[in-house]
Amino acid sequence: MTKGDETRSAVLGSAIALASTLGLEGVTIGKLAEHVGMSKSGLFAHFSSKENLQVAILEEAIARFVALVVSPALKKPRGEPRFRALFDRWFEWSRADFLPGGCIFVMASVELDDRPGLARDRLVASQRDWVDTLAHAARIAVEEKHFRNDLDCAQLAHETFSIAYGYHFLRRIVDPAETERRSRAAFERLIADARATNH
Amino acid sequence: MTKGDETRSAVLGSAIALASTLGLEGVTIGKLAEHVGMSKSGLFAHFSSKENLQVAILEEAIARFVALVVSPALKKPRGEPRFRALFDRWFEWSRADFLPGGCIFVMASVELDDRPGLARDRLVASQRDWVDTLAHAARIAVEEKHFRNDLDCAQLAHETFSIAYGYHFLRRIVDPAETERRSRAAFERLIADARATNH
Repeated sequence: MTKGDETRSAVLGSAIALASTLGLEGVTIGKLAEHVGMSKSGLFAHFSSKENLQVAILEEAIARFVALVVSPALKKPRGEPRFRALFDRWFEWSRADFLPGGCIFVMASVELDDRPGLARDRLVASQRDWVDTLAHAARIAVEEKHFRNDLDCAQLAHETFSIAYGYHFLRRIVDPAETERRSRAAFERLIADARATNH
Repeated sequence: MTKGDETRSAVLGSAIALASTLGLEGVTIGKLAEHVGMSKSGLFAHFSSKENLQVAILEEAIARFVALVVSPALKKPRGEPRFRALFDRWFEWSRADFLPGGCIFVMASVELDDRPGLARDRLVASQRDWVDTLAHAARIAVEEKHFRNDLDCAQLAHETFSIAYGYHFLRRIVDPAETERRSRAAFERLIADARATNH
């Protein structure tokens, strides 16, 4: 990592934390400069526009999501263990220290859904990739005969995604412990339904 | 309705539409005044502070949610038909003309989750009420023997809520038609599991 890369990564770490609380729109180059103790012109040299900054924040968040959730899960055995690990590690993501305001993708989805542009395109691609990753892990679990042959893997991915979104919301506005217990129970019901019944 | 009430209701209608797109924080008294063609001082006389305006927006949104979703569903026969109607009408809410940016409660949850105050309190109370309404409708369906005796009604409410949140997100960032189909399929699976098996 060069010095420039290190600076960029540290700045984006602060930007992710800010965006998690204030939203991507709240992270202006001016506010970020104040937060990291750099000059506005220095940051402007790195990111050149608010849209580029938003795309860079999303790229960094995606890289961290892959490192924290996807990569460790892909090291688990193929099939149900890997699918479960993807769900389990998602809870870690939602509670990560660097996301003090909760999941940045939830925040960005609410902000960007009606704002066409590069940032929205990147966000949409990342969310599609994530649903596809879940569906692909489910398909492997079918191949491994952990899940039944006639399972609709895209439907399982959709429902898993919905459970996680429900968790993100309800934990922050109702009760975190009860929400986690109920979200895990919902997932167990999904898995029980997905399992091969005749083996 | 007095003239003052009518003005207030019209102003809050515009405010809900703005908040659905920009967020509650985006609806300043200045911006709202510009939007409805009233003076800032006139609006200030109505709402007196940004926090009061946010609470008033939430109250109006809650009243509309009750009118569009809850009240019509409560006119349906007790039991599964009523529970289904609560879920069905939720789709109408999510697509309501007066919510051009999608569900205002989703937007407000993301904004207010880490901002203690009267607006957050009102939002949290409304979301708890809504989960309770779902759980209560499920309990009636157990009494009516449409759903099984050992059903965990709070769990069913939690899962229904999660399906709806997943729908709100995925329809706006992935594909609306496929998302609706999958969210309805998830709900049918929930209902099948909730039904009494021995009658």
